[in-house]
Amino acid sequence: MATLMKRYHPPGTPPGTLTRPERTKPTPPRIVLFDYDAHRLDELEDATPAQCAEARGRPSTTWIHVSGHPEVERLRELGAALGLHPLALEDVSNTGQRPKCERFDSQLFVIVSLPVTASGTIRTEQVSLFLIDNLLISFHDGTSDAFEPVRKRLRDSIGNLRTRKSDALLYALLDLVIDHGFPVLEQLGEKIEALESEILHSATRGNLNTLHRLKRGLLTLRRMLWPQREVLNSLLSEQQTLISAPTKIYLRDCYDHTIQIMDLLETYRDMTSSMLDVYLSSVSNRLNETMRVLTVISTIFLPVTAIAGIYGMNFAWQPELKWDYGYFFALGLMVVSAVLPYWYFKRRGWL
Amino acid sequence: MATLMKRYHPPGTPPGTLTRPERTKPTPPRIVLFDYDAHRLDELEDATPAQCAEARGRPSTTWIHVSGHPEVERLRELGAALGLHPLALEDVSNTGQRPKCERFDSQLFVIVSLPVTASGTIRTEQVSLFLIDNLLISFHDGTSDAFEPVRKRLRDSIGNLRTRKSDALLYALLDLVIDHGFPVLEQLGEKIEALESEILHSATRGNLNTLHRLKRGLLTLRRMLWPQREVLNSLLSEQQTLISAPTKIYLRDCYDHTIQIMDLLETYRDMTSSMLDVYLSSVSNRLNETMRVLTVISTIFLPVTAIAGIYGMNFAWQPELKWDYGYFFALGLMVVSAVLPYWYFKRRGWL
Amino acid sequence: MATLMKRYHPPGTPPGTLTRPERTKPTPPRIVLFDYDAHRLDELEDATPAQCAEARGRPSTTWIHVSGHPEVERLRELGAALGLHPLALEDVSNTGQRPKCERFDSQLFVIVSLPVTASGTIRTEQVSLFLIDNLLISFHDGTSDAFEPVRKRLRDSIGNLRTRKSDALLYALLDLVIDHGFPVLEQLGEKIEALESEILHSATRGNLNTLHRLKRGLLTLRRMLWPQREVLNSLLSEQQTLISAPTKIYLRDCYDHTIQIMDLLETYRDMTSSMLDVYLSSVSNRLNETMRVLTVISTIFLPVTAIAGIYGMNFAWQPELKWDYGYFFALGLMVVSAVLPYWYFKRRGWL
Amino acid sequence: MATLMKRYHPPGTPPGTLTRPERTKPTPPRIVLFDYDAHRLDELEDATPAQCAEARGRPSTTWIHVSGHPEVERLRELGAALGLHPLALEDVSNTGQRPKCERFDSQLFVIVSLPVTASGTIRTEQVSLFLIDNLLISFHDGTSDAFEPVRKRLRDSIGNLRTRKSDALLYALLDLVIDHGFPVLEQLGEKIEALESEILHSATRGNLNTLHRLKRGLLTLRRMLWPQREVLNSLLSEQQTLISAPTKIYLRDCYDHTIQIMDLLETYRDMTSSMLDVYLSSVSNRLNETMRVLTVISTIFLPVTAIAGIYGMNFAWQPELKWDYGYFFALGLMVVSAVLPYWYFKRRGWL
Amino acid sequence: MATLMKRYHPPGTPPGTLTRPERTKPTPPRIVLFDYDAHRLDELEDATPAQCAEARGRPSTTWIHVSGHPEVERLRELGAALGLHPLALEDVSNTGQRPKCERFDSQLFVIVSLPVTASGTIRTEQVSLFLIDNLLISFHDGTSDAFEPVRKRLRDSIGNLRTRKSDALLYALLDLVIDHGFPVLEQLGEKIEALESEILHSATRGNLNTLHRLKRGLLTLRRMLWPQREVLNSLLSEQQTLISAPTKIYLRDCYDHTIQIMDLLETYRDMTSSMLDVYLSSVSNRLNETMRVLTVISTIFLPVTAIAGIYGMNFAWQPELKWDYGYFFALGLMVVSAVLPYWYFKRRGWL
Repeated sequence: MATLMKRYHPPGTPPGTLTRPERTKPTPPRIVLFDYDAHRLDELEDATPAQCAEARGRPSTTWIHVSGHPEVERLRELGAALGLHPLALEDVSNTGQRPKCERFDSQLFVIVSLPVTASGTIRTEQVSLFLIDNLLISFHDGTSDAFEPVRKRLRDSIGNLRTRKSDALLYALLDLVIDHGFPVLEQLGEKIEALESEILHSATRGNLNTLHRLKRGLLTLRRMLWPQREVLNSLLSEQQTLISAPTKIYLRDCYDHTIQIMDLLETYRDMTSSMLDVYLSSVSNRLNETMRVLTVISTIFLPVTAIAGIYGMNFAWQPELKWDYGYFFALGLMVVSAVLPYWYFKRRGWL
Repeated sequence: MATLMKRYHPPGTPPGTLTRPERTKPTPPRIVLFDYDAHRLDELEDATPAQCAEARGRPSTTWIHVSGHPEVERLRELGAALGLHPLALEDVSNTGQRPKCERFDSQLFVIVSLPVTASGTIRTEQVSLFLIDNLLISFHDGTSDAFEPVRKRLRDSIGNLRTRKSDALLYALLDLVIDHGFPVLEQLGEKIEALESEILHSATRGNLNTLHRLKRGLLTLRRMLWPQREVLNSLLSEQQTLISAPTKIYLRDCYDHTIQIMDLLETYRDMTSSMLDVYLSSVSNRLNETMRVLTVISTIFLPVTAIAGIYGMNFAWQPELKWDYGYFFALGLMVVSAVLPYWYFKRRGWL
Repeated sequence: MATLMKRYHPPGTPPGTLTRPERTKPTPPRIVLFDYDAHRLDELEDATPAQCAEARGRPSTTWIHVSGHPEVERLRELGAALGLHPLALEDVSNTGQRPKCERFDSQLFVIVSLPVTASGTIRTEQVSLFLIDNLLISFHDGTSDAFEPVRKRLRDSIGNLRTRKSDALLYALLDLVIDHGFPVLEQLGEKIEALESEILHSATRGNLNTLHRLKRGLLTLRRMLWPQREVLNSLLSEQQTLISAPTKIYLRDCYDHTIQIMDLLETYRDMTSSMLDVYLSSVSNRLNETMRVLTVISTIFLPVTAIAGIYGMNFAWQPELKWDYGYFFALGLMVVSAVLPYWYFKRRGWL
Repeated sequence: MATLMKRYHPPGTPPGTLTRPERTKPTPPRIVLFDYDAHRLDELEDATPAQCAEARGRPSTTWIHVSGHPEVERLRELGAALGLHPLALEDVSNTGQRPKCERFDSQLFVIVSLPVTASGTIRTEQVSLFLIDNLLISFHDGTSDAFEPVRKRLRDSIGNLRTRKSDALLYALLDLVIDHGFPVLEQLGEKIEALESEILHSATRGNLNTLHRLKRGLLTLRRMLWPQREVLNSLLSEQQTLISAPTKIYLRDCYDHTIQIMDLLETYRDMTSSMLDVYLSSVSNRLNETMRVLTVISTIFLPVTAIAGIYGMNFAWQPELKWDYGYFFALGLMVVSAVLPYWYFKRRGWL
Repeated sequence: MATLMKRYHPPGTPPGTLTRPERTKPTPPRIVLFDYDAHRLDELEDATPAQCAEARGRPSTTWIHVSGHPEVERLRELGAALGLHPLALEDVSNTGQRPKCERFDSQLFVIVSLPVTASGTIRTEQVSLFLIDNLLISFHDGTSDAFEPVRKRLRDSIGNLRTRKSDALLYALLDLVIDHGFPVLEQLGEKIEALESEILHSATRGNLNTLHRLKRGLLTLRRMLWPQREVLNSLLSEQQTLISAPTKIYLRDCYDHTIQIMDLLETYRDMTSSMLDVYLSSVSNRLNETMRVLTVISTIFLPVTAIAGIYGMNFAWQPELKWDYGYFFALGLMVVSAVLPYWYFKRRGWL
């Protein structure tokens, strides 16, 4: 599959179909259920869909976190238990979606991209969030421990997250996902600056390939992060009561971060463009230097060889050959014919 | 005819004229009539205009699908029978139109582009849709079986299409047409990535032509798909009752897909631009290497030849020739004059 | 005068001045007056301003068509007779105006560009239209028979033009002028595609100049056609009763055509840009091939010459010369010194 | 001072300060006062601030025109006499401002750029206009006679300027300043077209520098003229009664001219970009031709020299030298070794 | 840390956290408290948080200025004393923020960038401003004396700053910060113009690196200054009573300055792009000249050497060698074979 494609069903598939897309291998999902208010916190590892459904009605805040890429059967079961919209569920399953924010009746459905670096390349993992009353469901199509800091804040009651509602938890998760862009961009920035100083010093073929890879990484990142700005924007302009006013102040901060990240990505893009120009002129300059060497060598030795050839001819009558100072005359002629044109071209600025 | 042109009438032709545009060959159309509700489905192959007209008043949902490029006479007959607007009919006939969405009184008229790949090149086929109450008429300027999946869903009552109205059928067809972009883009993406790894490894003249063809394919695709976003947008903001609220939720999903497709097309465009840069610098690098070889060879052998020439001169008096070690002296001189400049230029970084 | 300039008065000239701009030669105008309703049509060749003025009050629809570039005196006379606004009249006289749509009280004033090809180059001719009640006045700064199709439709009562008002005539003329873009673009497209296949095969200096001329033609066309979209737009959003609702449906079709034309122009622009890239890399590739030939020749023959020079030296003591197999030894040395470096460079991929 | 900078005060200077900016030399201003209505016109050369202040209350229209760059002291005096806003006065003094339109209570303050050509380069001079009731004050930071045509129209009562109010005078001055763009653009256009035909014929280093200077001229002009569109726009949408409806019709014409000028500037920019491409490929083409000559010469003569070298060796035993036809054999060998590779490379399209 | 990054906390940190970001060294802050009205001014160096808190309630205007990068502990103490919002405080601490304007209830929070040049490179320092009733708090993440001019105006009662409220002080500081762009841009402009005239005269490798550094400086500056336009815009459209109408007139002036600065930055960007083109063609031109020299030398001397080689062969029978004028014949042949091709190629325009 082309690496930039999202997963998709064959055209004509009924909407909301959850068949298993070819070429993707399901990984057993891990469902963790948090149920908390300011005073207590229950944590349930490997919760079943039934346990999840049961948690829905409670007055406390519930967070169901599903990580890994679950089998279609389990996803359908879970979706049915929690009353998730089939179109949203299809997007959860066909990962590689563009970040977006949608409302299905009383459900708020948000997709964001979590940028991660693994063995030198940059990928994004899809994070899908459902906000339904005081229930938050998150799907993370990956297995890293990215969400551990929020879990820790809940368990240890750090900050005021425990005392607030599910919209605050939504903010906390969005903030976490978006802020993951900073270390990834920092790594990118360091690579770009290292490459820049290399290219300014001397340009090799390897530099070019590195530059191309960096540009492509920027392209991918930009494509997956750019729509997040829109997502935050529509959350901020959300008219209904799902998101409270104090949470919106925090989301505004989050919005600022997406803008800062896009800003930086644009700047990096401009920098790589400028670096390509430097690279190309560097290559041209080197060619110039090589050619100047060739021309200097030729300007000096071609006339010498020609004159030597002339006095190496075997004509019966060639008076210079008999002169007493013929040899010196020939050597003198060589020096003159080597130096004169060189001096002339140099003076004209052609060498 | 220039390949990117739509068909058009000579300037000054009265509007709504259905004369046969030159240089296009009509193919016998195939008219299939579906008439269904939740309980029954009638399928009529090769329906006549009269049968189509008769189907108009019924309470059940009717779908008339015309494939192939019909003769002008039959088109006019059909248009009259079903009461289609002459301007719309002209657009159905002059294929190659830009996707658009228009209202003529109670008729909704939509043109979309169906991307297809045939023998390695990408084309689009025009699909024109009329929504009139519970009647949907579709014209497909092509002969492929693209619409079979929807026919199958109707016949086998898969999903809830049979229980819903003509607006749901409109969605199903639009979704089908738009989702055809994904496999086409996937093929394009695979070609682009294959070319990319080839160019990064070594650049040939053939790569350039392939790259140019890919860019042109992207250009064509973009031109025919970009306006579809607008089409979906105007369907979503449609104020009247032609399209029901539940169908709009599905159309929103469809809108998302057009955005994802445009997104991918833009990314591919950026990738091909970047690949051209790599190609060009690759060519420059190769020139540099060739010239370095030439310069090294010349730097070494031109001085040797010149010195050999000097001692091949036939002067009567040329003392070195008589020396006992003259020969070795000359050979030594040659080695020095070949190695010294080479070493000097190398050290200065000019070679 | 720079070829892209419109005609203009010296700065500081009072507005509405109709002095004769320097460097333009008036051609005798031809004024044709049509007066018609559904039942009859009067056609008057070479009408006088007085006859034109008289036609103003009638209940039938009147079309006054002025072709050629009239003398300032006659223009002023005609303007006065028909009550045209002086600023509008100035724009009629100073041709080369940007297409625009203005209202002066009850007058609607429209300027559009008629693209024509003459002897291989593309020009635009200014068409100025006044709509005053049931009177339409058109000025065509040219002498071609472009408007003949509409005249024929009126005379032969083809379509419903005769039964409708002056706004339908305005549409008919606008449609005619805008649709003239299609054959012009088709010609351009054919030239571009011909050039493209030439450049992909082999790039010559002549191709470059052709490409430059094509680009400039596109630039000019774009500049004169782009504002027409805006013109149509403001006609469509015209609030007053000058243009009836049914005519607006037809104008929407016209608007579609301007968009299709701009679309095609943009695509052609992108194609020419891409062709320039192909051209440039083609030139680089050819240089590469030439230099490879030079380097191969030099790599083979420079060492041979140097060795031959060595054994052509005239030293008294040079033992190889006396050997029995000296000659073969020298020839062998030559072969080795020619083949070895060539093989080495080839293997390193430098040749 | 960098040539594109406006004059500015050191950061932290209180707003409205009128200290003398360094590095600018004041020129004695010339203040001309016109006071007119339809029946009479008083013209006062070298008016004093007191005379200006006195003119303020009158029912007739007053025009105070200040040309040259006045000393700060006189400017402050005049500003105080006429009640001009200090921030506006600061902008009058620090010339090089971006064109803009501002309101200070009942004062309308407009800055526009007058393009002038002097000794081959293009500059803009700042024109600042105050409209206060029936008083118009204009500052022209230059000494040319640009405003003479309007003075003449007033004195000779040409057009209807004398019968109208100060807003009509504002229009007349704006129109004059903006229309100065046309001759300047015409000159530029002629230079660009001349350079274009030169570059298409043969490209020299001098062309490149000319092209760069033209581009920079376009850049400067664009920067100083682009905001004028906005200025006209805000004058047209001016809600208050300072500008009458009939004058707005004329200002709309003026707005059209700014658009035409920007249009032309954009087209010239595109043309210069395209010319650079032609220039660069022209340079590449010339290199190609030079290298082809070198390669042909080398392909022919290097093998000849090598063979001649071989038969110039002094081996005791070298049988060809003794042959009767050895000489012809050698010459024949030379011809073959020169022609064969040349023919081969030519056929392969490498030369 | 990549140089363009702002400081940030690890993803998942609770909002409003003020932990000390790694790799940044706190500098002891300097807190200066001004308390003034039209009649008196109290200045307090090294104020304590308690003294600051106490100043909050007073009817006079208070300005608390904090320069240097304070320790987290002191910042938290000060924030608590003055009631600053934790999210705002986090932005004060994590410097490198994008300029922005936010409201937290009755607090107005503004971040702007102060451009400074230090040892040839351009940096921006973050200035954060809080406006709370008649209290203004400013944080300057730097140690330069940038704000001295405003302090002086307060102390010496220059202008009307003392008689007005805290919003006027806000304007004074913003104006100061923004106007710092002018001298920085002037320096940049001078460098760009100097480089331009160097590149137009002769292009060296060093020029390219300088150009790249200039472009990068422009990029950085643009990124940090561009959002200031938005900041001013939102201050101007501020609906609440924090900023009075007269101050808004002055802020409009400030807004103008940000536009002028962005304008200039864009122009400089275009200039550097154009300079790169000139540089690249300059390099190509030089290569052309070098190659022409090489080709001329080769065209002249290669044939001479070849002919000399022929008459230096040792064939027993080689009649020319015996001729009386053989030598002159050979020399003549050389002249002809050197001059003829040269003349031919010259005439064809290949040299």
